[in-house]
Amino acid sequence: MRACILTIGSEILDGSTLNSNARWIAHQLTNEGVQVVAHVSVGDDLPRIEDAVRTWMARADLLIVTGGLGATPDDKTRQGIARTVGRKLVLHEPSAERIRDRIRRLRPGSATPEDAAALLPMGSDVLENPVGLAPGFVIDEGTARIVVLPGVPREMEAIIDLHLSGILSRWSRDHVSKHRTIHTAGLPETVLSGKVDPLLPPGIHASYLPHYGRVDVRLRMDGKEPEVTMALASAVERVSETLGDFVFGRDDETLEQVIGRLLVHSSRTLSLAESLTGGSLGAAVTSVSGSSQYYLGTIVAYGNKAKEDLLGIDPALLREHGAVSGPVARAMARGARKAFGADLAVSTTGIAGPKGATPDKPVGLVYIGIDDGENFRVFRRQLGRDRILNVRRTVVTALNLLRLLLIGRLPDETA
Amino acid sequence: MRACILTIGSEILDGSTLNSNARWIAHQLTNEGVQVVAHVSVGDDLPRIEDAVRTWMARADLLIVTGGLGATPDDKTRQGIARTVGRKLVLHEPSAERIRDRIRRLRPGSATPEDAAALLPMGSDVLENPVGLAPGFVIDEGTARIVVLPGVPREMEAIIDLHLSGILSRWSRDHVSKHRTIHTAGLPETVLSGKVDPLLPPGIHASYLPHYGRVDVRLRMDGKEPEVTMALASAVERVSETLGDFVFGRDDETLEQVIGRLLVHSSRTLSLAESLTGGSLGAAVTSVSGSSQYYLGTIVAYGNKAKEDLLGIDPALLREHGAVSGPVARAMARGARKAFGADLAVSTTGIAGPKGATPDKPVGLVYIGIDDGENFRVFRRQLGRDRILNVRRTVVTALNLLRLLLIGRLPDETA
Repeated sequence: MRACILTIGSEILDGSTLNSNARWIAHQLTNEGVQVVAHVSVGDDLPRIEDAVRTWMARADLLIVTGGLGATPDDKTRQGIARTVGRKLVLHEPSAERIRDRIRRLRPGSATPEDAAALLPMGSDVLENPVGLAPGFVIDEGTARIVVLPGVPREMEAIIDLHLSGILSRWSRDHVSKHRTIHTAGLPETVLSGKVDPLLPPGIHASYLPHYGRVDVRLRMDGKEPEVTMALASAVERVSETLGDFVFGRDDETLEQVIGRLLVHSSRTLSLAESLTGGSLGAAVTSVSGSSQYYLGTIVAYGNKAKEDLLGIDPALLREHGAVSGPVARAMARGARKAFGADLAVSTTGIAGPKGATPDKPVGLVYIGIDDGENFRVFRRQLGRDRILNVRRTVVTALNLLRLLLIGRLPDETA
Repeated sequence: MRACILTIGSEILDGSTLNSNARWIAHQLTNEGVQVVAHVSVGDDLPRIEDAVRTWMARADLLIVTGGLGATPDDKTRQGIARTVGRKLVLHEPSAERIRDRIRRLRPGSATPEDAAALLPMGSDVLENPVGLAPGFVIDEGTARIVVLPGVPREMEAIIDLHLSGILSRWSRDHVSKHRTIHTAGLPETVLSGKVDPLLPPGIHASYLPHYGRVDVRLRMDGKEPEVTMALASAVERVSETLGDFVFGRDDETLEQVIGRLLVHSSRTLSLAESLTGGSLGAAVTSVSGSSQYYLGTIVAYGNKAKEDLLGIDPALLREHGAVSGPVARAMARGARKAFGADLAVSTTGIAGPKGATPDKPVGLVYIGIDDGENFRVFRRQLGRDRILNVRRTVVTALNLLRLLLIGRLPDETA
C-alpha cells in the first residue's frame, strides 16, 4: 500500500514556509506501516492541481491532499478535485449548518459566506473537523482513495488524529513498511556501508545519512507483521554488535542525551574549555533538560590572554607551541577541570577559518583535549575549509570522544 | 520561466526530516525572479527517480534535483538521471583527482572508494563543490535544464551560491519577480504589518517571516527591470526610515555581523557571562569570521558555585535573590567584564525549562544584563515553555540589546 502527500499553496512553493504538514502526515502514515512514495507541492492553480491529482492517483493507493480548502476565491482545491474525478460540487447541508452555527456563535450578526467550505464533490464521505470550519472529505475513485484536508496545521492534525484508522481501514494492513535507526559516530558512510550491507538479510535495506561527523544507519523493511518488527529488531542487534563502539544510540536517542545519562550514572561532573567552538560545545551539552545535574560550565577563552588568565596556561607554552597545539589543548582541559572543580574536562582549539592559517597550521586543524583527573589525552583532526562546518564537526567529535571515555573505550591517540 | 525542485531521499518521505533544502532552493529561485511551480520528493529508487525527472522535464524549464549523490549503493540519483536522459556515466577525472586529494589529506592511508562521487552523465557540465566531495552537474536535455546537487545542506547551498547566476544565464530575464528583505528585531509581526503595509505602493507586496525574536519583512514585486529594482530600493528606504531602530540590517546581513562591525568601528572588546544560554551566545558571536578582533571570551557558569568562583558573585546575593534575578544578571555581566578585561559584557540567566520553575519564577523567565563600564542595565523577559526556543530567543534578544547599546539607543529599562 503506497501513499502520496499533495500539499497545495504558493507560500510553500516560493520558500516562504517550510512544508511541515507534509512531514507530519508522513510521520503518521509511516508509523502505521504505510509506505509514502512521494511528497508533491503545487500552487493554488486549477490545471496544476488536476494534473497532480491525476498523476498520483495512478501511482499511489492513497492520496492525502491538504491546503486550499478555505472559502476565499484563491482556494481552488475542492474545485480541482471535483473536476479531476468528474463530479459536481454539492452543498453538504449538515456541514453547512454546523458552519453557520459556529459563525453565529463566533461573530454574531455577520453574513455567512463560508457556505463554500461545505461544498463537497458528490458522493464524498465527510471527515468532521473538530477544531475549525471546513470539514475534510474522502472520495474513492477507481483503485485510489483521495483524502482532502484543510491546510491549517491544527485542523489537519485534529482530523487525521480522529479519522486516520477509518481512512486506512479500506486496506488490509498485514503488509507494512517500517524502519529503525542506528546512530553512529567515527566512521565515514562508505566504510559503514561496507560493514553493514553484507550483514543484512534479503528484504532489509540500509541507507546512510551523514550529519556533521555522525552518520545515521536506517534499516527499512516491507512485509507482514509481526515478522517485519522482529526481523528489524534482530538486524539492529546484529549491526550494533558488529559496529561496536561506533554506535552511540538508536531511534530517537541523541549523543547529548547518551552522554548525560552516562554522566548521571557515574555521578561525574563535566566542565569545558572552548576556543575554536566559541561556546557551541556547551550549547550542545545544555540542550538536554536536566544537564545542570552534571554540567558545571565552560570557559570560552578566545584570545591568548584569556587562556593565561582564566585557564592558567603558561605563556611560555603558548609562545613555544602556539594556541592551536596539542600541549595547549591539554593544558586547557586541565585548566577547566581545576577552575570548575569538575571530574572531567574537554577542550577544543583549532583554526576555524576561513582566515587564521599559518604555514604549518592549515584551516581546519583541530585539537581536542580530554582530562579525567588521571589521564590526559589529546586528539588531532584535520577538518575542512568551512567555518561553520568545522565548528559543528568538532562539537560532534568532542562529544563522541567524551562518550568513549565514559564507557571506558577512549583510544590511546595523543597528538 | 518555470522551475521544479526535486528532492530525493527516504528520510524526507517518511517524515524523519523536514525538507528544508526545497525551501532554501525555492527561496533563492524566487529571489532571482524564477517561478517555482512544484516541489516533488521521491525515495532513493531508480524507477521513481526516472518517472519524476521525466514527468517534470515536460512541465518545467529548470529542474533542480538534490540528494542521493553520495558514494554508497543506496544513492541512486546519478544513475536515475543518466538513464532518464539516455547517457552513460563516465568518471570525471579532475573531480575524482580532487576527491582523492581531499581524502588523502583527511584520512591518510585510507582506500578511496569515493570515486563514485565523480561519476557524471556524459556531456554534463561540472559545478564545483567548494565545501565537500561530490560535485554538482548540469545537463541540458530538450528544452529543459537539469541541475543535480548533493543533499548535504551546506554543500548544496555553497554550490548554488557559486553557480546560480550561471545556471540561469540560459534564459532571458526581462520579466522578473524580485524581493528585498529588511531584518527587524523587537516588534511582533502584526505591529510590523500595521506600520509597513500602508507605506507600500501598488505592486509591492510584503510578507513577514518570524525567526525566534527577529522578523524579516520581505518586499516582493513582479515586472520589468530596471523599474522593479528601483521601486523596491525606494520602498526599502521608506520602510527602514519608518521602523527606525527596530531595523538591524538588510538582505544578507546578520545581527552577528552588524554587531561585529559596530565593535570593530568603535574599537571595543566584548566578553560574555552565560547561564541559561549555555554557550549559545558565544557561539553566535563567533559565527562571524574575524570575531577574534573584538570577542575575548565567555564564562558559562551553569551552577551557583561557578558563578561565585569565576564571576565573583557574592553568595549572599545568590541566596537573597536567586540565580535567576536582575541583581545576579547585573553581577554576572560585571564579573565577565572584569575577568576578561573587556570594554563590554552581556549576561544571560533564566529558566530554560521544561523543569526548574518555582512558584514566583516560571519557565521562560529570562534576565539579560549589559555592562559597558559606566552603566549597568538589566532587561527582564517572559518567554515561552520550549527549552530550545527559549535559548534561541534569548540569544537574539541579547544580541539586539547589545546592538542598541552600540548605536547609543539602549532603552532605560532595568529589571
